[in-house]
Amino acid sequence: MSLPSLRLTASLAALGAATAVLSAPATSARADEGMWTFDNFPIATVNEKYGTNIDQAWLDRVRNAAVRLQGCSASLVSNEGLVLTNHHCVVSCVQDLSTAQNDYVKNGWMPATREEEKKCPGQTAEILTDIVDVTDRVTGAGAGLEGAAFVQARAAEIDKIQKETCGDDQKLTCQVISFYRGGQYKLYKFRKYDDVRLVFAPEFQAAFFGGDPDNFNFPRYALDAGFLRIYEDGKPVATPNHLTWNANAPKEGDVTFVAGNPGSTQRLLTVAQLETLRDQQLPISLIQTSELRGRLLEYSTTGDEAKRVSVDPIFGLENGFKVNYGQQGALTDPAFMATKRREEQELRQRVAADPALAQRIGDPWADLERASSAQRDLYLPYRQLESAAGQRSSLYSYAKAIVRASKERAKPVAERRAGYSDADIASLGRRLATETPISNDLEKIYLDFWLSKTREYLTVDNANVKALLGKESPEQIAERLVDGTRLADPAFRAKALAMTPEQLAASGDPLIQFVLANDDAAQAVRTQWESAVSGPTSRAGEKIAQARFAVYGTNLYPDATFSLRLSYGQVKGWTYRGVTVEPFTQIGGLYERNTGAEPFNAAEDWLAAEGKVNKSTVYDFVSTNDIIGGNSGSPVINAKGEVIGAAFDGNIHSLGGSFGYDPELNRTVTVSTAAITEALRNVYNQPRLLRELGVRR
Amino acid sequence: MSLPSLRLTASLAALGAATAVLSAPATSARADEGMWTFDNFPIATVNEKYGTNIDQAWLDRVRNAAVRLQGCSASLVSNEGLVLTNHHCVVSCVQDLSTAQNDYVKNGWMPATREEEKKCPGQTAEILTDIVDVTDRVTGAGAGLEGAAFVQARAAEIDKIQKETCGDDQKLTCQVISFYRGGQYKLYKFRKYDDVRLVFAPEFQAAFFGGDPDNFNFPRYALDAGFLRIYEDGKPVATPNHLTWNANAPKEGDVTFVAGNPGSTQRLLTVAQLETLRDQQLPISLIQTSELRGRLLEYSTTGDEAKRVSVDPIFGLENGFKVNYGQQGALTDPAFMATKRREEQELRQRVAADPALAQRIGDPWADLERASSAQRDLYLPYRQLESAAGQRSSLYSYAKAIVRASKERAKPVAERRAGYSDADIASLGRRLATETPISNDLEKIYLDFWLSKTREYLTVDNANVKALLGKESPEQIAERLVDGTRLADPAFRAKALAMTPEQLAASGDPLIQFVLANDDAAQAVRTQWESAVSGPTSRAGEKIAQARFAVYGTNLYPDATFSLRLSYGQVKGWTYRGVTVEPFTQIGGLYERNTGAEPFNAAEDWLAAEGKVNKSTVYDFVSTNDIIGGNSGSPVINAKGEVIGAAFDGNIHSLGGSFGYDPELNRTVTVSTAAITEALRNVYNQPRLLRELGVRR
Repeated sequence: MSLPSLRLTASLAALGAATAVLSAPATSARADEGMWTFDNFPIATVNEKYGTNIDQAWLDRVRNAAVRLQGCSASLVSNEGLVLTNHHCVVSCVQDLSTAQNDYVKNGWMPATREEEKKCPGQTAEILTDIVDVTDRVTGAGAGLEGAAFVQARAAEIDKIQKETCGDDQKLTCQVISFYRGGQYKLYKFRKYDDVRLVFAPEFQAAFFGGDPDNFNFPRYALDAGFLRIYEDGKPVATPNHLTWNANAPKEGDVTFVAGNPGSTQRLLTVAQLETLRDQQLPISLIQTSELRGRLLEYSTTGDEAKRVSVDPIFGLENGFKVNYGQQGALTDPAFMATKRREEQELRQRVAADPALAQRIGDPWADLERASSAQRDLYLPYRQLESAAGQRSSLYSYAKAIVRASKERAKPVAERRAGYSDADIASLGRRLATETPISNDLEKIYLDFWLSKTREYLTVDNANVKALLGKESPEQIAERLVDGTRLADPAFRAKALAMTPEQLAASGDPLIQFVLANDDAAQAVRTQWESAVSGPTSRAGEKIAQARFAVYGTNLYPDATFSLRLSYGQVKGWTYRGVTVEPFTQIGGLYERNTGAEPFNAAEDWLAAEGKVNKSTVYDFVSTNDIIGGNSGSPVINAKGEVIGAAFDGNIHSLGGSFGYDPELNRTVTVSTAAITEALRNVYNQPRLLRELGVRR
Repeated sequence: MSLPSLRLTASLAALGAATAVLSAPATSARADEGMWTFDNFPIATVNEKYGTNIDQAWLDRVRNAAVRLQGCSASLVSNEGLVLTNHHCVVSCVQDLSTAQNDYVKNGWMPATREEEKKCPGQTAEILTDIVDVTDRVTGAGAGLEGAAFVQARAAEIDKIQKETCGDDQKLTCQVISFYRGGQYKLYKFRKYDDVRLVFAPEFQAAFFGGDPDNFNFPRYALDAGFLRIYEDGKPVATPNHLTWNANAPKEGDVTFVAGNPGSTQRLLTVAQLETLRDQQLPISLIQTSELRGRLLEYSTTGDEAKRVSVDPIFGLENGFKVNYGQQGALTDPAFMATKRREEQELRQRVAADPALAQRIGDPWADLERASSAQRDLYLPYRQLESAAGQRSSLYSYAKAIVRASKERAKPVAERRAGYSDADIASLGRRLATETPISNDLEKIYLDFWLSKTREYLTVDNANVKALLGKESPEQIAERLVDGTRLADPAFRAKALAMTPEQLAASGDPLIQFVLANDDAAQAVRTQWESAVSGPTSRAGEKIAQARFAVYGTNLYPDATFSLRLSYGQVKGWTYRGVTVEPFTQIGGLYERNTGAEPFNAAEDWLAAEGKVNKSTVYDFVSTNDIIGGNSGSPVINAKGEVIGAAFDGNIHSLGGSFGYDPELNRTVTVSTAAITEALRNVYNQPRLLRELGVRR
């Protein structure tokens, strides 16, 4: 079992909308809105609003202490490479280090000495060191070119810029990132560490107390914190630029900054696009996720092994469900949509008032309405036959990757689909070689579910459905393919990846043959989708982005791109439907909420410590910071630049942050350094860590 | 196991909207829209459009042959009381007559002689004989009164009218029905028969071939037909006024009439109300139904008994899901909503142009927007704590009914909530006395599901959720209540129904105590809902109905009320998203569609008959008739008044018919008399029935 990266990890690219330029019109500039880049932070606005003294040196200090992990965010908190992040960002490492005898997920990972800190497989830590504007080079490279030549010239220039700066140095990452949908290109240069070790993780039940019912809600009573340490050459890295640990909780109204890597937002979507999401993609996703959730929940009750293998997928499903549910909540909120309409109206009027701009932009809104109309027709076949085909089945995903790679490899490099360069295929080979546990029961549930939903949504009379099912039922096909395939074996996967399509067809592997037989149809649906929906949508989106850029300039923040951002805000509760939610919880609340029954059973160490622990210590708190998935583990920082917590969640309204920031409702949820300190002191007895954090015992 | 009445049976009252006046503006009068009463059928319009010669005598003949069953529709088709309806309207009777040795659901019910026809428990047949306008009496009774006195005076007058005409005669039903939301009251007088016997039912797999995937779709290959016979004094009733059986299928474009009892439509809902349904009620319903569907589907795979007990609930869930899905499809269709907006705009303009009317009506649209806003806040608690509390759990419904009856009985009659008169409580006693099989597994799934969703949607911190759950988990509560309650025993239910609230509290029955402990809170939520949502909605709806009545007169049809209606249309396919669906299927298609795997396994008798049966016979067909749930079993009639089929389904678009008729897409699905005849002749060898139907062998 590998436990999932839940909540605010970067996994929101799900809805297929391209990462977009993002910016808010000036009218909402007073709200604590924005995931600002470090080279365009609204220093004056913040200092004026919050009476702070932010300056470039402050920003540089924070930037130097901010760490990007795989899918998460983090920060340096000691001189010796100690990194604070969320428990849910390290739990898969905890799982990897566990054995049948020692279940560190359940019991926590708390080595007594530094020598016992163990490496987290696959984890990396990247610290942003430089930002260089390369807009002219990138845009210049494509000048005068069209179509594929244009795309290739730009890609080549980006590749060249990255190689020029970082070469093959494994200690560096160079990444050219597009902001404002191509309005700007910046080279982000990182110092990279790939020896990242696990220092401390509390018990799962302390970190994720409240489980799904409390996920994306508040009040919370979760110690969703963990510590890593970055090593180089077998030794902890010296990190003098770390954040100072402040074990005092903030007060209501205190200013808070969050430095981290929000994964993806789509705040530029037009009203027509948001309505299509609301009416079509999100409902289908919510409905299908719900049915599969029901199937897995019921399956998990059939035995211990069933429960064990389904814990992780169920968490993933429930987290994904809630993300979509929260997004839908925003899109069905009349006030939220009214704001969107007003903003769109304002931009369109500003464009119309500038003839040169109007001429350059055309009418992308009309283009998007046309694309939305095509999308209504094509979405279900595209989803069921291509984008979500075999969804969640590992075996199916292997087969599909192998079939596609085999077909693309047969083509000249220049004619291949994106993602199938020789390097891409080599990288795929490495992924396929990884040993991953497979549950045949779950694989059958996934395939049966996918096929039966495909039949349900496209109907039996659809030619592609007929081809998929033939004379078999979904259950029969799932059974036959899973029982018959050899794709659970990494050695066979490696062998298959080297085969030609003809060899695959003759391989005798029923799952490969099944995917191969339906692949032309699936690719045809993809091509149709790209030409009628995603292509036009992307082109129109670029034009709207250019319009916003022209109208509002860079006094705006770009959409999230899993690159380092800083948001500002304050500690503040909220009121919704007549219910006011206070901004803080205290440790004592954990004991009141404890029922002894999952997921409201307090962890054993906490129960044992009830007499010792200071119950009035602030546990978790909420603030108005604008964050999104990918921000998990981000340091929450006070005006002095000290770390006062680790952001680990948002409230349910924060999920609307995919499309827009609502200052009344959108809240970040943070586990306080006060609570972490109290836990290290009186629950887990970790003097070694307290000393390193500079905390008096 | 009692199999469900699926598809077009009357079960659409689900969404809680009151049965409403219904009418379409004159602009859409050319479409085949309308569920017309027999005393206001647009004879001239139809004769003009279709070249028919409908007259009052034609209408009377059809009315005299139309039969209302429990939740379904039907027609007389022989001199000797033979009744044609759907298989799915008789399947619960087939189930009741089955034994462990003889599974007539699986094998069909085909007695060789009339003497072997068996009574269907609980089934009744009602034939409408008179319609009398009693509007003046009903409205006059309430004149000058207000509030409860007004309601009571009208109810008393209605009761008096019914008793005056039918007395206590068990052979008559008298029902005063409100049309156009109180614009008209009519006394419907029926001849009633309560000895209804099962004559013929095909195998389940012939009737419901294609199962859920084909439900509400077309092409269909389903023999969803069955025959009953009405008896009196132990003998078949002479029924000279029957419809003539025409075994020839219609042709494309032929006019078709459907006479039956559409259950409920809400075509008067305003755009704001439709948006609230689209954004709130339908999504929650779809999501929750999907998760429960997943749980039941997975549960059903755990063993034979699990499969047996869950077949019926799964069919019910899947049918309900698809109804809601189809409704949502209409509400998210831009063209459908544009029509709704246009119609609303037109009515509002006509009202505004008539100062006296505007003065009388006020601004009910603004009232409804206010009610919609309150509804957004109150819907989830109202749903989870009251309207859907314990949903689908029989035991919970017993406990709730007993607790409420006990509390209401303690009040003076005049102060009781609606539905708790002494007669109502006596009727409840009869229902509670009925022996019904209970699956403890399913009961636990239902209660666990309800409680866990209540926690999820209202959050753990909601005071009512805290009171419901205490320190237990949903699973623990479900287990404790189901294992501990005695409510599965009808004798205990009878005893409990006689108890005072104090006695119930002391009864020691954990489920009764659980419901009792939370009942005040649930009733408080109901009261809040009624005063802020359903009350104002109903009052505003009446005003809009009055406006429509004033503007368009009675040249309109009222909303469906499970009373006899006639719709007209023609045999016609449709085109959606580029796919054209032909109006007919032929019997041969069944064999092509047969896969041998459920639910696409053709019934054994059909497989055996493949060499004999005429494959070119029309099996099922679609027409533009405007029908809805409750119309199941309705005779489909040609211009000459002959029966040519039994309506049994609609296409997915017909489900939008709850809110409006879309002439492009809304279709009725009918099993042809041609197919029934062919089946009786060459599949089931039923010369006795063929003779009675007047068909040459």
